[in-house]
Amino acid sequence: MSAIPQDFIDRTARLSEEITRPFPNSRKIFVEGASPDIRVPMREVSQAPTHASTGVEDNPPITVYDTSGPYTDPQAEIDLLKGLPALREAWIEARQDTERLDGPTSEFGRARAADPELAALRFEHIRAPRRARPGLNVTQMHYARRGVITPEMVFVAVRENCRLQEMRADPRYAKLLRQHPGQPFGACIPDEITPEFVRDEVAAGRAIIPSNINHPELEPMIIGRNFRVKINTNIGNSAVTSGIAEEVEKLVWSCRWGGDTLMDLSTGKNIHETREWILRNSPVPIGTVPIYQTLEKVNGKPEELTWDLFRDTLIEQAEQGVDYFTIHAGVRLPYVPLTADRVTGIVSRGGSIMAKWCLAHHRENFLYTHFEEICEIMKAYDVAFSLGDGLRPGCVADANDAAQFGELETLGELTKIAWEHDVQVMIEGPGHIPLHMVKENVDKELEECFEAPFYTLGPLVTDIAPAYDHITSGIGAANIGWYGTAMLCYVTPKEHLGLPNKQDVRDGIITYRIAAHAADLAKGFPGAQVRDNALSKARFEFRWEDQFNLSLDPERAREFHDETLPKEAHKVAHFCSMCGPNFCSMKITQDVRDYAAKQGISEQEALEKGMQEKAVEFVEKGAEIYREV
Amino acid sequence: MSAIPQDFIDRTARLSEEITRPFPNSRKIFVEGASPDIRVPMREVSQAPTHASTGVEDNPPITVYDTSGPYTDPQAEIDLLKGLPALREAWIEARQDTERLDGPTSEFGRARAADPELAALRFEHIRAPRRARPGLNVTQMHYARRGVITPEMVFVAVRENCRLQEMRADPRYAKLLRQHPGQPFGACIPDEITPEFVRDEVAAGRAIIPSNINHPELEPMIIGRNFRVKINTNIGNSAVTSGIAEEVEKLVWSCRWGGDTLMDLSTGKNIHETREWILRNSPVPIGTVPIYQTLEKVNGKPEELTWDLFRDTLIEQAEQGVDYFTIHAGVRLPYVPLTADRVTGIVSRGGSIMAKWCLAHHRENFLYTHFEEICEIMKAYDVAFSLGDGLRPGCVADANDAAQFGELETLGELTKIAWEHDVQVMIEGPGHIPLHMVKENVDKELEECFEAPFYTLGPLVTDIAPAYDHITSGIGAANIGWYGTAMLCYVTPKEHLGLPNKQDVRDGIITYRIAAHAADLAKGFPGAQVRDNALSKARFEFRWEDQFNLSLDPERAREFHDETLPKEAHKVAHFCSMCGPNFCSMKITQDVRDYAAKQGISEQEALEKGMQEKAVEFVEKGAEIYREV
Repeated sequence: MSAIPQDFIDRTARLSEEITRPFPNSRKIFVEGASPDIRVPMREVSQAPTHASTGVEDNPPITVYDTSGPYTDPQAEIDLLKGLPALREAWIEARQDTERLDGPTSEFGRARAADPELAALRFEHIRAPRRARPGLNVTQMHYARRGVITPEMVFVAVRENCRLQEMRADPRYAKLLRQHPGQPFGACIPDEITPEFVRDEVAAGRAIIPSNINHPELEPMIIGRNFRVKINTNIGNSAVTSGIAEEVEKLVWSCRWGGDTLMDLSTGKNIHETREWILRNSPVPIGTVPIYQTLEKVNGKPEELTWDLFRDTLIEQAEQGVDYFTIHAGVRLPYVPLTADRVTGIVSRGGSIMAKWCLAHHRENFLYTHFEEICEIMKAYDVAFSLGDGLRPGCVADANDAAQFGELETLGELTKIAWEHDVQVMIEGPGHIPLHMVKENVDKELEECFEAPFYTLGPLVTDIAPAYDHITSGIGAANIGWYGTAMLCYVTPKEHLGLPNKQDVRDGIITYRIAAHAADLAKGFPGAQVRDNALSKARFEFRWEDQFNLSLDPERAREFHDETLPKEAHKVAHFCSMCGPNFCSMKITQDVRDYAAKQGISEQEALEKGMQEKAVEFVEKGAEIYREV
Repeated sequence: MSAIPQDFIDRTARLSEEITRPFPNSRKIFVEGASPDIRVPMREVSQAPTHASTGVEDNPPITVYDTSGPYTDPQAEIDLLKGLPALREAWIEARQDTERLDGPTSEFGRARAADPELAALRFEHIRAPRRARPGLNVTQMHYARRGVITPEMVFVAVRENCRLQEMRADPRYAKLLRQHPGQPFGACIPDEITPEFVRDEVAAGRAIIPSNINHPELEPMIIGRNFRVKINTNIGNSAVTSGIAEEVEKLVWSCRWGGDTLMDLSTGKNIHETREWILRNSPVPIGTVPIYQTLEKVNGKPEELTWDLFRDTLIEQAEQGVDYFTIHAGVRLPYVPLTADRVTGIVSRGGSIMAKWCLAHHRENFLYTHFEEICEIMKAYDVAFSLGDGLRPGCVADANDAAQFGELETLGELTKIAWEHDVQVMIEGPGHIPLHMVKENVDKELEECFEAPFYTLGPLVTDIAPAYDHITSGIGAANIGWYGTAMLCYVTPKEHLGLPNKQDVRDGIITYRIAAHAADLAKGFPGAQVRDNALSKARFEFRWEDQFNLSLDPERAREFHDETLPKEAHKVAHFCSMCGPNFCSMKITQDVRDYAAKQGISEQEALEKGMQEKAVEFVEKGAEIYREV
């Protein structure tokens, strides 16, 4: 008899449709790195040809960055009960610097593993955890600093390039590759992302590759300001709602729409078991806030938190495979009173927990005082720090104040310590910031934290639009990404109001994909504009299907189009519902261009020669063509 | 027997609920200007008191700018068949510089008025049009330049201030008035908007008050970079869908959610009659693109357009009361070939019509060659120019190119000519622009067009998100508003895909209200932050109802909240669905503050004195309080 809950078994069969169907006209491709065991997944979108008056012109396929993992691959066998294939296993093994433990070494981990009552909830195929062999350091930063290029680094280099070199060598892409020079504000993005460049950026601390040795299912990705801007999504049950199966489904959904990483912010019961299911089925890095679970262990009483309990939680989660930990070590005792006069005090959950602990004991934050010991744990599994901004502003009035910037300075100090241990670090940022005060946050972070990757929540540029905070924050996110933030933590329309449902998650992710892409264009990331150019060409040529398929959300684009003009015939019509068939500006311009091409001269020449009669003839012909459609 | 269509009569009865119900806890107030006949409508949102441990504290009402007209006023009698009250009638009359005509003077207007077949469609209570007496000029700019302060100027001054002076004099608002200094990029926003300042801005051409003498129903508003950023919405039937009644309902809906002006872009049959219904029922300025209707008059053949037909259309519409005309006079013949190598050619409908005319006749754009004659018409009715950007880029690849900026220079040249006639002018702008190239548009417009108000469509900062173009463009809009754009033309989620339905219009408007408000905050518009501060305070104090009511969309905020926690009791609960009752950061911070207040000392002092035991006592007490909820 299987101990696995029935709804999971049901779900395995069901995963195939809404949340895993491949995107239209798309196929999963694998681009090889240096060796055949490095196979980087991408999505290739094919296009229809252009039927111009001068003949048929091929439109080449467009390759897009793909976060969806095996879930959108019809060739992949998905079984949530078994988890994803451990694609990094051989790489980790080959390094010979880790050892397989007998079982979890954390007290809590052992207790959960031994509890027979949890059998019904527990993931079946748990591997024994891996840990660095005594005295060894297994972080990507450590390898990088020793000059080693890991398979993970090769993987992310190939992934970031998204076949740019191939396109450059192919004349069909020549026009599509045209791109405006960016304004990178000090970012130094090379023309091609090489494994060497990745290594150097990781070594310098300007980028991280979150990749716990206990999360071999991961498809590696990189977070740094000289790479594509990434987005993080959050899931998590709370005391009020949701269970395990729902959370795993949200993970797959998040990957589908473009989440690069995912934080599991669960606070309810069974978060240990939920996390195992998520990690074993996640192709993206998973982050957590370990203090949440630690607090559960003391029944929600912050003053009863202890270093030992926290330490045990870190090990428990590191051995499950969590890739980055939010640690609120910068909420120092002296900063707490600086929040007293704020409009919204302390709004970070982790920050308020630590503030409460500090006040209760009138002692310095134990995460701060034990920071070096935390580093020792991080480097034994390669967990990256996400240094939490526990004092981030919760409204525009509190933006950029002494408490916020005081904490940021401390995060810089901690970054240096982490780097002495070769532990990877990113820095969390706000929050709620008016538009004109956003840049100061990036500038200050880069300076105080020595260019460690910045990872911000939004920021929301106004407080007055609950139910639309994906938008208030998407505006801030696009700007802060442009200025140099490496990863944007998404916000859904339900922020401040309730728990997001699936459509809210999708809205939040697409909004943040827009923000990240807008930032990539603004920074001038090589090849970023190809997709814009291809989609716009398709739009101009009334290749409706291609316009949908190249978009960030092909399904909704088609659905919106079909609300007004549902018939299949309209998808090839040379007009749209906005202007109707007889009155279309795109059609007019296309006729102008076709005419010039037919005459074998440019429009410029036609005008210069004053070919008035021929122009009139064209217009008459053009008008007829309209009516034919 | 009434000639009015039955669905209109039905609709009059129905307007009261979904699209006219007053916002919760809000009342319509009227703030008087210099004289009692200047009554400026605003919306006052009342708030619940704060129940703190130190006692009950009153929260003062918040006044917000109100575009909704009489429709949200339960005292107002709404009858679409009669139209809105002509509140400007007496002001116009008092100036004694206009005359009431016998009837329409345009040929087309007379023909429509005489056509018995249109009786069933025609608005019943059409006033005979007004026109400037021979040789006189009735524009707000003309008055301003002669030093006159019109009632319209007083009205907008009061409206822009939104009771700021009253709040400053009232100690209850002291904390709510705290605001970050802005970064206005050369905008010069005074501490208080006076009628004199309005007059001077209008005289200088830096602001316009669109207010046709034949649109006396209008509640005047101002467009200029030293005032609140405004938003425009578009409605319009097309050959494919929609009729008159639907368009009027969209107008009321647009005003409800915050549209400051509205463009009627109808291209179908009966646009003359549709426009009359819209104008007579519109509290906001109405704009049109007269070339659309002119083209209908020549059966959609651009090459058959003539100056005479266009001129007749201008007069027809001016006499109905259209407040601003988009005129594509900058699409000059030499610029047209500059678009041949673009990815998306010419995407403006008006631009492509004129380009086609130019090519067909190989002659200069007749709007350009007849520009002075157009000015003569504009000043006889006070119609403002919205100089159209017919060559705006339709994709990021085409941004900021020679065609676009060539046209902009011509718009500057035309601005000077219009100003010689004291005709009000704003300048239309793009379109699709990557984030880092947005500012150049504003800088160039301010320079080339002598600071005439800029009015931009978006811009969209990427092309790859059809179905989310309210967001791609909202990002650009917030930025361009911050840099100095005076009015933002909204974009709905259906842009590029289909015609927006009511929910799309609402999404588009709220997105643009967010963008405009974000820009106001960034520019440091006096008092702009009051609403943010009040809402955030309410949020922090778990005054859920106040949080909803102060938001841009109280109805959706409440609906989203209720999806997770529907019970009425939860609206006063000191927690929300995100963290549950035992784990709330806002609650923790509030406890910290309450404790400090109770001790009669600041937290800073408490810490300095090292009151460890008392801190512990507080935490224990705090923990109990949690569990009580």
